[in-house]
Amino acid sequence: MPRYRITVEYDGTPFVGWQRQDNGPSVQGTLEAAIKSFSSETVTVTGAGRTDTGVHALGQVAHFDLVKEFHPDRVRDALNHFVRPSPIAVLTAEIADPDFHARFSAKARHYLYRIVCRRAPLALERDHAWHVVHNLDAEAMHAAAQELVGQHDFTTFRASECQAKSPVKTLDKLTVRRALDEIAIEASARSFLHHQVRSMVGTLKLVGEGKWRPRDVASALEACDRSRCGPVAPPDGLYFVKVDY
Amino acid sequence: MPRYRITVEYDGTPFVGWQRQDNGPSVQGTLEAAIKSFSSETVTVTGAGRTDTGVHALGQVAHFDLVKEFHPDRVRDALNHFVRPSPIAVLTAEIADPDFHARFSAKARHYLYRIVCRRAPLALERDHAWHVVHNLDAEAMHAAAQELVGQHDFTTFRASECQAKSPVKTLDKLTVRRALDEIAIEASARSFLHHQVRSMVGTLKLVGEGKWRPRDVASALEACDRSRCGPVAPPDGLYFVKVDY
Repeated sequence: MPRYRITVEYDGTPFVGWQRQDNGPSVQGTLEAAIKSFSSETVTVTGAGRTDTGVHALGQVAHFDLVKEFHPDRVRDALNHFVRPSPIAVLTAEIADPDFHARFSAKARHYLYRIVCRRAPLALERDHAWHVVHNLDAEAMHAAAQELVGQHDFTTFRASECQAKSPVKTLDKLTVRRALDEIAIEASARSFLHHQVRSMVGTLKLVGEGKWRPRDVASALEACDRSRCGPVAPPDGLYFVKVDY
Repeated sequence: MPRYRITVEYDGTPFVGWQRQDNGPSVQGTLEAAIKSFSSETVTVTGAGRTDTGVHALGQVAHFDLVKEFHPDRVRDALNHFVRPSPIAVLTAEIADPDFHARFSAKARHYLYRIVCRRAPLALERDHAWHVVHNLDAEAMHAAAQELVGQHDFTTFRASECQAKSPVKTLDKLTVRRALDEIAIEASARSFLHHQVRSMVGTLKLVGEGKWRPRDVASALEACDRSRCGPVAPPDGLYFVKVDY
């Protein structure tokens, strides 16, 4: 019973998120339906990360098992055919080790958050970046971000509905860089708490606006108090970039 | 009677093109309706270039006259309000000289054409790039492109419905560069014939596939024969980037 590993790009805008739910189309459910269409097998697709409504992926990784063995290129092409017209693209498919697990084998997850600072609304990048109408100080945001790197109790940056056993996580990287009117925030860790990236980005925006100093971010982290978090950034700007195994 | 000059970004996907037409929403018509909504004046908006259905703009320039004088920031914000929910963004608005003409005063127009070469369909960039399922030789395409630079009779690369008086144009720049799986083609000229950029891109693709050599592009140009043009590239990948005055 071969295990397949796929890398998936998707536009999160029309989905209720990665996870199958009753209230609308999900990426997981769309992939499962496509697998059913081409193989007639009913499977569960397990993803490396359960992205929220409106969050995008450049390289989500997932696995599933089929009774029958197909050439992986055929799996990739068949899934791309049957997911249409949903904005999902299976970039790669391969046969994985039977003990490979998209979620539990992951050694690092990488996210990108895009902010576009300008007066005018977004036309071409609508739903694909956070539109902020005033300028942000990216250097101050980067300095503040360094207060969050390392092993910490991230309770302040954790959604109340987060199901992780522990709020202690090790954030390996959190960089903030500007290019023209766009600010790119890159975050890497073995795993993240629910809403952690968007909570951190929303808090760093307060620094970018000059409302908070970097030391205020450190204080908020140390407080381990959800009420000390800045407003959570919207999902539009968040991209699940890749997973290391 | 002040003349206003605006810079406009738009996603061309839902429009019949720049020009007002009876068969669907146009960028020009949407802007004219927005101007009417905020000023109660009925105007004609003149653009620097009449982009086709599905062609995008990062920096289209247009002008129009109003009887009443408004602060240009107010014009920009009001237009952005009233064009909603159309994917149009007025980036800048200013008072222009009375003799400024978005089309006739233009000294150079700059276009970008994006091709993404990969097996999987496009999810995040759907409608925003030309999806080509095999790899293209960007260096060969660039070499062939240089055959087109300069002053030539571009009849081969001109749509049959083109209304320009002469097929002779001077192409100042045509570069082809690759970055990962994306090929970016940049074209600059004082003005272009109808479908000229997409005709040139479609022909260069034949070179990228190894079906044509650069010298075949030179022969096609010299033939001044529309039937010698490669298949016209789709509008999805074309962006009107900016105009110099």
